[in-house]
Amino acid sequence: MTLTREDAVSLDAGDPLAAFRHRFVRPSEDVIAYLDGNSLGRPLQSIGKVWASFAADQWAGRLIRGWSEGWMELPQVVGDELAAAALGAAAGQTVIADSTTVNFYKAVRAAINLRPGRRKIVIDRDNFPTNRYVVESLAKDLGLEIVWLTGSEDTGITVADVEGVLDDQVAVVTMSHIAYRSGYLADAEAITSAAHRAGALVVWDLCHSVGSCEIELDRWQVDFAVGCTYKFVGAGPGAPAFAYVNTAHLDRLDQPIWGWLGRQDSFEMEQGYVPAAGIRSMISGTPSVLGILAVREGAAVIAEAGIGAIRGKAQALGEMTIALADDWLAPLGFTLGSPRDSARRGGHVSLVRSDARELCAELTQAGVIPDFRTPDAIRIGLSPLPTSFTEVWDGLDLMRELAR
Amino acid sequence: MTLTREDAVSLDAGDPLAAFRHRFVRPSEDVIAYLDGNSLGRPLQSIGKVWASFAADQWAGRLIRGWSEGWMELPQVVGDELAAAALGAAAGQTVIADSTTVNFYKAVRAAINLRPGRRKIVIDRDNFPTNRYVVESLAKDLGLEIVWLTGSEDTGITVADVEGVLDDQVAVVTMSHIAYRSGYLADAEAITSAAHRAGALVVWDLCHSVGSCEIELDRWQVDFAVGCTYKFVGAGPGAPAFAYVNTAHLDRLDQPIWGWLGRQDSFEMEQGYVPAAGIRSMISGTPSVLGILAVREGAAVIAEAGIGAIRGKAQALGEMTIALADDWLAPLGFTLGSPRDSARRGGHVSLVRSDARELCAELTQAGVIPDFRTPDAIRIGLSPLPTSFTEVWDGLDLMRELAR
Repeated sequence: MTLTREDAVSLDAGDPLAAFRHRFVRPSEDVIAYLDGNSLGRPLQSIGKVWASFAADQWAGRLIRGWSEGWMELPQVVGDELAAAALGAAAGQTVIADSTTVNFYKAVRAAINLRPGRRKIVIDRDNFPTNRYVVESLAKDLGLEIVWLTGSEDTGITVADVEGVLDDQVAVVTMSHIAYRSGYLADAEAITSAAHRAGALVVWDLCHSVGSCEIELDRWQVDFAVGCTYKFVGAGPGAPAFAYVNTAHLDRLDQPIWGWLGRQDSFEMEQGYVPAAGIRSMISGTPSVLGILAVREGAAVIAEAGIGAIRGKAQALGEMTIALADDWLAPLGFTLGSPRDSARRGGHVSLVRSDARELCAELTQAGVIPDFRTPDAIRIGLSPLPTSFTEVWDGLDLMRELAR
Repeated sequence: MTLTREDAVSLDAGDPLAAFRHRFVRPSEDVIAYLDGNSLGRPLQSIGKVWASFAADQWAGRLIRGWSEGWMELPQVVGDELAAAALGAAAGQTVIADSTTVNFYKAVRAAINLRPGRRKIVIDRDNFPTNRYVVESLAKDLGLEIVWLTGSEDTGITVADVEGVLDDQVAVVTMSHIAYRSGYLADAEAITSAAHRAGALVVWDLCHSVGSCEIELDRWQVDFAVGCTYKFVGAGPGAPAFAYVNTAHLDRLDQPIWGWLGRQDSFEMEQGYVPAAGIRSMISGTPSVLGILAVREGAAVIAEAGIGAIRGKAQALGEMTIALADDWLAPLGFTLGSPRDSARRGGHVSLVRSDARELCAELTQAGVIPDFRTPDAIRIGLSPLPTSFTEVWDGLDLMRELAR
């Protein structure tokens, strides 16, 4: 029995997170359904105000004094706020700075530095491109071997896949917590444990999971993690990324881009790099204050809603999407490109058909905005806080119209 | 004969750039003189508006579509705008992305990659800390030798100093165009030529010169240059930096942080890194759109004012500062920590006395905001567009009061 639009309206009426939708700026009139919050989240209304008032009051008013009145600590302060809201990490292990790519480069290299003598990095072929490219550049530079894993769309990379390649030469295992294409949610805890049993360290990419599902970095004993803040955290296009380093490694942390803001006593401007104590030394240059302030807004709303409730709604939106896809789209030749088991599926659902590229363009033109991923997937992003069940229903309804 | 306040008022009346002052947000009432635009420039009024309207219209309205409607090209488009306004560089060689530190890391490493077999990097002890630390990290990683130069406060590093250490083992010579402490303006053209004669490449740090004095990267045949945009370009705290790579090197450009946005056909998300054509491959991750839009505002106002006129006013402000320092501050024990020759002096003047740290704190408390630089310098930043002669006069007047 197909879910009706009335069913979707009922789901919205019973949605404990419904009120959060009104915190976001309304999209323009031409948007029927925004189903790409997993690429670029919608803006909270508060963010434009924060930016304008920062320019007028903080920047113009405090000028250089702002740096000694709090801006300098923002990467760590807001890092801790995000860690508490969404990463399951105690304070003092997270900074907001740089891009995901740069943080990933630093984290993987720092992990390699902690495992001298080991010559292999394990990564999967379906990992996000930037991660694969960074690993390739580091492997070339350091003469390391890359061990490539390939998972299936249903199961992604399993613990057994990883265990199958672990040996005493593996320095680092790195994966995406949620696969960018299939939405497969990896068993981060079990893979981390398996890596540790072989003496390797892990670097998790949390881009698609932060703000979308539960993350317990400390409990899982993750070594390093990075991720972006412009998807489910909603900090805006090109917002700074985060980097997490487990307390256990902070004493010996050696990341490769030594910069003044990661040095002990930066403003003494002394000769010779000496890393600052703790997580601070993951920073290199000056991070974007504007960007960090937007991350703060996103972290606050996640904390207020609660990541458990967010995950619950993401799963419900995913179940509805798959039910409608089964009823409406499977008969039109679509297959599911994501795990059917919601416990192993993140905050988006991929629907696969060979003309996905063209169809995605038509949908966007018509006001339903999903995302295309090569070669043949339409990703339906299900961002719990700004998205209603009705919006998803309407989007899929138009999709079946256009896909006929 | 000491310049009177009336003289300063007259200089303002005759200042062809006077109207630009009103483009900036007024500082709060407690600020008598802001003399630190060389650390953090004041905000143009337009920037807060650009940010708020970007959040409300572009981000909220266009959502993910914005990336294919122009955001993706912004790093290069605004790079070209800044290059035309302030760098003396033709289009296609400049991007806005990352921090100065990260860009410097990429540029120095890319330069080293273009000089395989050579084992030395030349840098000066008075270079900005982050540059020194990055060179140390690269030298450690690659087993290179650092050749440290030391200049005097008056003359900085001269061509002869550089020539004295050049040999066929030097891969890269890197310096700041304007020294952060003394304000010494290096002879970038002559040093670049000297390096080239020895077969080495140059990487110039333009943090303190961009938007403050004439730069002719193409004419000087500079290989690589980087710099920040939060000083004289005025793009805000933590605004993204720029990176310039001479066309001559673009075909073989190999920077170390391979990321998806620097790859050919990023969104095909293919296996294996293949650098994008041209300057694009200097990019790694997603740059801050907000930050780039602020750089655009700064570049536009520099283009409108003209870098020649800006440099002229910077020199006039510097001459006035030194004349007043000679009259008022030298008798109180201050010495000039900057070149007296305005042709060799950038956009700030350092005044040296052993209690500079305490005095700078007192000045800031009283509403005159210069910058302290260890161990004993007060930097008087002279940002031509927002700063009046009267403001500088008032600032130095209070300085002589407090320094008695």
